[in-house]
Amino acid sequence: MKRKDSQVAQKVKVDFTPQGESVSVPKGATILEAASLGDIPVEGPCGGRGTCGKCMVIAQGKLSPLSPAEKELLSAEERENGYRLACQAKVFDDVVVELSDQEGLKSQILTQATGSNAVLDTDVTKYHLVLPQPALEDQRADLQRIRDQLPQGDTLKAELEVLRKIPALLRESEFEITAVVAGAELTDVEAGNTAADSYGIGFDIGTTTVVGYLMDLNTGEQVGVSAALNPQSVYGADVISRLSFVIEHQDGTKKLQEKVIGILNELIEEACNQTGVDPQQIYQVTVVGNTCMHHLFLGIDPRSIAPSPFVPVATAPLCLKAQELGLDVHSRALVYTLPNVAGYVGADIVGGILATGLYQSSELKLFVDIGTNGEIVLGNRERLLACATAAGPAFEGARISCGMRATSGAVDRISFDSDVHYTTIEGARPRGLCGSGLLDAVAELLKVGVIEPSGRIVEPEAIGPLATDQIKRRIVAGESGPRFILAQAEESASGQPVCITQRDVRELQLAKGAIFTGIQLLEKELGIEDKDLAEVLLAGAFGNYLRKESALRIGLLPPLPPGKVKSVGNAAGEGAKIALISARLRERAAEIAQKIEYIELSGRGDFMQAFADNMFFP
Amino acid sequence: MKRKDSQVAQKVKVDFTPQGESVSVPKGATILEAASLGDIPVEGPCGGRGTCGKCMVIAQGKLSPLSPAEKELLSAEERENGYRLACQAKVFDDVVVELSDQEGLKSQILTQATGSNAVLDTDVTKYHLVLPQPALEDQRADLQRIRDQLPQGDTLKAELEVLRKIPALLRESEFEITAVVAGAELTDVEAGNTAADSYGIGFDIGTTTVVGYLMDLNTGEQVGVSAALNPQSVYGADVISRLSFVIEHQDGTKKLQEKVIGILNELIEEACNQTGVDPQQIYQVTVVGNTCMHHLFLGIDPRSIAPSPFVPVATAPLCLKAQELGLDVHSRALVYTLPNVAGYVGADIVGGILATGLYQSSELKLFVDIGTNGEIVLGNRERLLACATAAGPAFEGARISCGMRATSGAVDRISFDSDVHYTTIEGARPRGLCGSGLLDAVAELLKVGVIEPSGRIVEPEAIGPLATDQIKRRIVAGESGPRFILAQAEESASGQPVCITQRDVRELQLAKGAIFTGIQLLEKELGIEDKDLAEVLLAGAFGNYLRKESALRIGLLPPLPPGKVKSVGNAAGEGAKIALISARLRERAAEIAQKIEYIELSGRGDFMQAFADNMFFP
Repeated sequence: MKRKDSQVAQKVKVDFTPQGESVSVPKGATILEAASLGDIPVEGPCGGRGTCGKCMVIAQGKLSPLSPAEKELLSAEERENGYRLACQAKVFDDVVVELSDQEGLKSQILTQATGSNAVLDTDVTKYHLVLPQPALEDQRADLQRIRDQLPQGDTLKAELEVLRKIPALLRESEFEITAVVAGAELTDVEAGNTAADSYGIGFDIGTTTVVGYLMDLNTGEQVGVSAALNPQSVYGADVISRLSFVIEHQDGTKKLQEKVIGILNELIEEACNQTGVDPQQIYQVTVVGNTCMHHLFLGIDPRSIAPSPFVPVATAPLCLKAQELGLDVHSRALVYTLPNVAGYVGADIVGGILATGLYQSSELKLFVDIGTNGEIVLGNRERLLACATAAGPAFEGARISCGMRATSGAVDRISFDSDVHYTTIEGARPRGLCGSGLLDAVAELLKVGVIEPSGRIVEPEAIGPLATDQIKRRIVAGESGPRFILAQAEESASGQPVCITQRDVRELQLAKGAIFTGIQLLEKELGIEDKDLAEVLLAGAFGNYLRKESALRIGLLPPLPPGKVKSVGNAAGEGAKIALISARLRERAAEIAQKIEYIELSGRGDFMQAFADNMFFP
Repeated sequence: MKRKDSQVAQKVKVDFTPQGESVSVPKGATILEAASLGDIPVEGPCGGRGTCGKCMVIAQGKLSPLSPAEKELLSAEERENGYRLACQAKVFDDVVVELSDQEGLKSQILTQATGSNAVLDTDVTKYHLVLPQPALEDQRADLQRIRDQLPQGDTLKAELEVLRKIPALLRESEFEITAVVAGAELTDVEAGNTAADSYGIGFDIGTTTVVGYLMDLNTGEQVGVSAALNPQSVYGADVISRLSFVIEHQDGTKKLQEKVIGILNELIEEACNQTGVDPQQIYQVTVVGNTCMHHLFLGIDPRSIAPSPFVPVATAPLCLKAQELGLDVHSRALVYTLPNVAGYVGADIVGGILATGLYQSSELKLFVDIGTNGEIVLGNRERLLACATAAGPAFEGARISCGMRATSGAVDRISFDSDVHYTTIEGARPRGLCGSGLLDAVAELLKVGVIEPSGRIVEPEAIGPLATDQIKRRIVAGESGPRFILAQAEESASGQPVCITQRDVRELQLAKGAIFTGIQLLEKELGIEDKDLAEVLLAGAFGNYLRKESALRIGLLPPLPPGKVKSVGNAAGEGAKIALISARLRERAAEIAQKIEYIELSGRGDFMQAFADNMFFP
């Protein structure tokens, strides 16, 4: 959802074949963005810059005209056959996209998580039953008649509402019914044979963005996806400000819960409308999110998370009924929340560890989810350590002079040669700098010596030979110190230059220093060194989008070959999805949360010392 | 509740010491009736006729003046010391009754059921906890903090409402709380130490009468009891007419459920008011009743019980939450319904078998609950057979020419010598004949030869020498055959004689024939003879009140020595009580229902044949 603006954008539908998935995106999004949102694997090694030509798809519908990159990279024959580059073609109305040439690709992350043993192991099973009719020789009670036909037998429980429904339904349907069984509970009885229709929805409730994945519980396949901004943001952009809202308003928890339930219901409706699924046939829900989002979703007052010692109300995995929460799916749908680890390491991280399979890895790996908070997990199947660091909102463009969220016009990629080159989101005139652009900018400025390892912007006359004069000329004195002009006033949308200031560099130093220090302390706790790391997994939208080389260059991550750094996409969302289709993996999630040793960094002298050291760039 | 009229009577409270029980009864009831209602054992071999003097108690409060029987049987010293006969003294306002002389007595039935192994084994336990306060070194979530102090540990589940309550409660109470745990569920958390206050209520929902037994779950003792007529009777006096009401009215089930929930809530309020118990500290409820009452209590449409093959919706034991049913106790109190066996053998019978311990008896016993339906269970710990017979309402005084319910003025005991002697309820002028009077009358008429074994009332001139002339003179010709005058017009309240007609005798023959045939067929199924029976247990109000000798004389029961016939009081209610205080016994109830082999009599040729034979008197 990187490119979704906070205004309510008009939505269009992208149907992917042969996956059979339908993704709803704002009008004007690229096919690649739609694919990314739906976790549909489309190869794109150049990062969507239209240079590698590998994201070729066949697309039909109202699309943007061929871009210069497409004209260059697609043959006449390909163009005639409807081929487009997914990163270039924007959708202006409902379109159909064929990925047949890409079908060799598989969602790497899901494969990792479920491995070759992946079996569909849903909690929900529908049984089509033709029951023997009652007679004087067979006076079994209605419930018994059903139990006797099911593998759960007499352990099968039924809620009162189901019991009340049974007698009339059995007789109206002439004893041919479908029993919906979730775990050991008779969730419902339906007339006739409805066994083919069985769905679940997995939610990733992010502080900024909420995504719903509609899954077919009979096949384990994703059939639709919908996403939206988290409307709680009207009460505060980040976790801390939402906690403050709760503390300051008596009905704060209730208001925030209403917001999130409201948007989840919109996402349910949207995903169902896309796919023709009846929301009453969604029998299971899974939810991941950080601990605060988790509590707010449940209507549990999260205020105790805010002050030290940062204590949550509940970390254990919970199972509720949809009607308790007001979710517009089957009223008795089981709603599973994945477990939290601590106040600032939530179910989203557990979901990520589940999805990436880190908990069963023989090799040591590092999992980093970067946002306002950086959550870090280090370990393997033997041990898992976790910590959270307050990185601040720099990576999301906040507190940066020209910072902005990753929406249209944000400078998102920067490279230097003799001068500065950049791209913007949607190719619009530059409006500001988003997190990945900031990272690139500082990395390039370090490379050419405009920024010293201390973070100081060097005076043009003191800069070494790696920077050209063109680059040096971009350093200008500002009111509060020197700044570097990335886009000149005449290029920009506002007529103001897009700059990076000394203060911006300092903000980035704080952010990267906090995360790096967290990583370092976990390594120390585990008694390992950087070289012992087999892989670094970057999760979350930002982790997915940043340029690894830049992250390494500024010292956000330990010094490793870029090949060891891997983006794993929306690992939390993947966790929600696989926990939905596999009871076994949901149990794993509980084990993961139990296993993770949470290391509290606040108040640790060694953290503060290391943090001070790690503010420097490598 | 025999003597409660259908008008709303003014209630007074009888406090029994040393039991500490409080019983609410209509003003004017005798102390014996109050004791009987509260299942407080008061010896009374003469059956409340004021002849044996054994029911002596010390009573204080506004009572009826000394009756002639009391003046005769109590010494001057006893009278001075406040002794009264429980069967004679009527309560006109709240009174205190001391049973110290009677304390050797114990509720025979409860002793039978729980035996010497009786252990308090309630589902609900309250734990007073002083929790360690959170710190940076102890960041456990609130729920975890509680779980870690409880034997249930991480298996402890908590509903959302409890989770929502926890954070504020812990902090307001400075982490000193009482956890209410029912089974593996955290029912509630309460501030401070409330462990001493833990209650449950057991309900016996009869078609006519509803009784609630308030129990202290810490001691297993009954602390209060309340009873009322079942207000569903406005929609039909018996099960069949209530089923008809449901069939004929779309909202019939709902209406009947509202009635029963309404009266249960009144009984809860009454029992709590008597005893000062807070209804919010009632954490558990058990319910017995016949299958139709069971379904109506749950709001489950019972119509399928009515026509052949008499199939109920649910027979299995159920566990619900009070709030699902609208019971005004703790909203998350667990409500257990005991299992049913079949459409006409319900949870009340299962409760009776549990309470009498028949399921663990080494000897063969017969359990008979007589009402409009006669439910019969035969067996021992090896096997249990059950059947239901439609006895008709004769035993309740319906379809009998001078029949009436067992209320004030009903002729309830009859004996013949040279003439007829009778007693009436409350010693009022005779208004009619209740079930036990009818039984006595026919038994005596058989003895003296006024009625032949065929049931025919003999012409006076053909009667043998056992009947005196005074008795013979009571036979008069009526419009539809001969009738026998029990109370002359001048003795009666209405100025009309109280008679028994030929048709009345036929009604009784049908009723006793049905029950006896049921017994006979169960004996046949089990391959036993009358002489193999160690005991006959008579349950229910009527079973408790009839004269065994008369029941044996008319052939309602197999020909056995009267010493083998035993009244077991409200065995169903006892079942509800012991299932409340013992999870183990609640499991036994489930096993009993599984074990009972239900024999369907309808449509059986051998039943009809035997029934025809058994209409005759022995």
